[in-house]
Amino acid sequence: MKNVIILGADGYLGWPMAMKFACENYRVTVVDNYLKRKIVADTDSTALIEGPRLKERSEIFQSLFNFNIEVNEGDCADANFMDPLIERLQPDAVVHFAEQPSAPYSMMGRSEATTTFNNNLNSTFNLIWSIVKYSPNTHIIKLGTMGEYGTPNIDIEEGWIDIEHNGRTQKFLYPRQASSLYHTTKILDTDLLWFYARHYNLRVTDLMQGPVYGIFTDESRADDRLLPNFHYDDIFGTVVNRFICQAVAGIPLTVFGAGGQTRGYLNIEDTMKCIALAASNPPKNGELLIYNQFTEQFSVNQLAMKVRRACELLNIPVEMQNIPNPRVEQENHYYNAKHTGLSDLGLVPKLMDSDVICEIMSKVVVKKDEISRKRALPRVQWKTS
Amino acid sequence: MKNVIILGADGYLGWPMAMKFACENYRVTVVDNYLKRKIVADTDSTALIEGPRLKERSEIFQSLFNFNIEVNEGDCADANFMDPLIERLQPDAVVHFAEQPSAPYSMMGRSEATTTFNNNLNSTFNLIWSIVKYSPNTHIIKLGTMGEYGTPNIDIEEGWIDIEHNGRTQKFLYPRQASSLYHTTKILDTDLLWFYARHYNLRVTDLMQGPVYGIFTDESRADDRLLPNFHYDDIFGTVVNRFICQAVAGIPLTVFGAGGQTRGYLNIEDTMKCIALAASNPPKNGELLIYNQFTEQFSVNQLAMKVRRACELLNIPVEMQNIPNPRVEQENHYYNAKHTGLSDLGLVPKLMDSDVICEIMSKVVVKKDEISRKRALPRVQWKTS
Repeated sequence: MKNVIILGADGYLGWPMAMKFACENYRVTVVDNYLKRKIVADTDSTALIEGPRLKERSEIFQSLFNFNIEVNEGDCADANFMDPLIERLQPDAVVHFAEQPSAPYSMMGRSEATTTFNNNLNSTFNLIWSIVKYSPNTHIIKLGTMGEYGTPNIDIEEGWIDIEHNGRTQKFLYPRQASSLYHTTKILDTDLLWFYARHYNLRVTDLMQGPVYGIFTDESRADDRLLPNFHYDDIFGTVVNRFICQAVAGIPLTVFGAGGQTRGYLNIEDTMKCIALAASNPPKNGELLIYNQFTEQFSVNQLAMKVRRACELLNIPVEMQNIPNPRVEQENHYYNAKHTGLSDLGLVPKLMDSDVICEIMSKVVVKKDEISRKRALPRVQWKTS
Repeated sequence: MKNVIILGADGYLGWPMAMKFACENYRVTVVDNYLKRKIVADTDSTALIEGPRLKERSEIFQSLFNFNIEVNEGDCADANFMDPLIERLQPDAVVHFAEQPSAPYSMMGRSEATTTFNNNLNSTFNLIWSIVKYSPNTHIIKLGTMGEYGTPNIDIEEGWIDIEHNGRTQKFLYPRQASSLYHTTKILDTDLLWFYARHYNLRVTDLMQGPVYGIFTDESRADDRLLPNFHYDDIFGTVVNRFICQAVAGIPLTVFGAGGQTRGYLNIEDTMKCIALAASNPPKNGELLIYNQFTEQFSVNQLAMKVRRACELLNIPVEMQNIPNPRVEQENHYYNAKHTGLSDLGLVPKLMDSDVICEIMSKVVVKKDEISRKRALPRVQWKTS
């Protein structure tokens, strides 16, 4: 029986991933220190749909699916917590979601930047060393972000690039340049993982993930208490989820700036499939595999149009509003990112159409009165005053 | 009167730099937490020439040169220490040497890796924020390393590279890939400084420095008590200094592996000139300037030969010995690194010849009985067992 640990399992993606692995007959152990719930409270960013804590979720899941998920509360940056866990479990894989995932939070100010920097870097660094010391064949599956690449004026390759220069060639990590501290911590993670993979023969997959949307997975459909925590606020809400909530609540869809910002997106169900594929296809020792984990590219304007079109089918009128961009980013730019690696492993994507958007809306609409306009609008400006 | 703070001023380069700036009529403030002295004690790596602590050095310097150097003992990673200092002094420049500088130490094991990682990253991160908050026009002069680039099979450009790919072009930070955790922390520093320079309009110069050798600067020649701390051991001794000490002590010059490892080197006097030039040529706000700071390229075999030739002039017989390489690195590789930026600013280098080597030997030879064979041989293997 394969054995996986999910770090950051209370998060948007961690919990559904834990259920998915359990249903695929993995032995699953989950870890969280509830840092995100603390930040949610500190920033008044209550989730629209908030699941119970992991112990309770695990009990509900067991009662419905009859699979056990072992829950551990602790800090992945703490060697005294992580070492015995890794030593005891000797996991085939560790899926590392245990990072502060909000770009706006990382740009609020020094305290938030420091929390992001310390949590993200120290959790990765400590995980590496727990693996080196206690389970060196474990496959580390790390969630990176497409945001590491930024928006260069050339094609974005899948992790690596062959550079020809003055008649000679060299393969490098594709150069990275991000637009928030959060994204920058993921660049540093990649640098670190690549160094330690080479030097201590670790097995690492780094998934450059685009923004995820949606709420349904095979397991979360079974009971609302198993849904992932779902945010629409400016701190933790990803753009599609935010647009859907704005549409339902009668708030104009707030497009930041010109709206030409283009990224690669994927459905939460595809995130599950991608990570499962990564787990089934581990790298060799000493190898860092990198996949660009998204299924379709859209501009923010295109996303807003897609949400509006889906709403028209339900006779919900939707306005779009271009507001001053709180972020520092290019608003019209070249963007062509490769993403064949996961398809080559067998990923069949669930693309974003009106049915998909309407299904998400069905869960949101019953909570429409709880959607706060204030939280749905930008509260964080990228620049210091 | 220009105003500079030197972080890590107890180190090999920090103290001579402080004296140099003072003699060039800067107001100079120095900072150290003596972490290196602690590591020196922990690893039995006593310097061959060890100066007094900064307060005493500053008094000696003042008595001889009549310039004041203000001394502050504290940790650059501590906001409660750094913020008031930066706020009070509003420095024109901060020269940031405050990093654990030993590659072998960073590869000894988890505890040493963690010390290196935390000290280096947190000192840079905290410095950035003290500057953002209290003195945003201050020029940060950061000591990076040529080791950030590793040994790619293409020419090493000066910090940046224009990549042409599928018919389009983009300028990137030159891709970095290092061979120790120490060098990797400097890559992360560069990533961080580049992000925050762009986003908070900071002024940053990042100096990709090669291994430094030598002991004499204009000021240190005045009194032996003003010499920089000088190491020949495997932890803190740079290769030329180590070879000179081995030669004097009758120990064969220990060439790691095949000895084809090629790097760019510079004399400590040229380090002083380079940093002074950087300080006189600050970047614009939001700009990251990068210079490759070395004057000549040599292989390890070439260095050993140069030391041997200098010793022949003094009738000191010298053996060379190829020993198993304790590091993981390429031993025969392409290496062609650009270094025109500092020359363009006016650097006139002091190149490595027999006179230069013999002058260093003159200080070493009187201490030859203190040179320990054990410390002069590798004590750290790069790989975990």
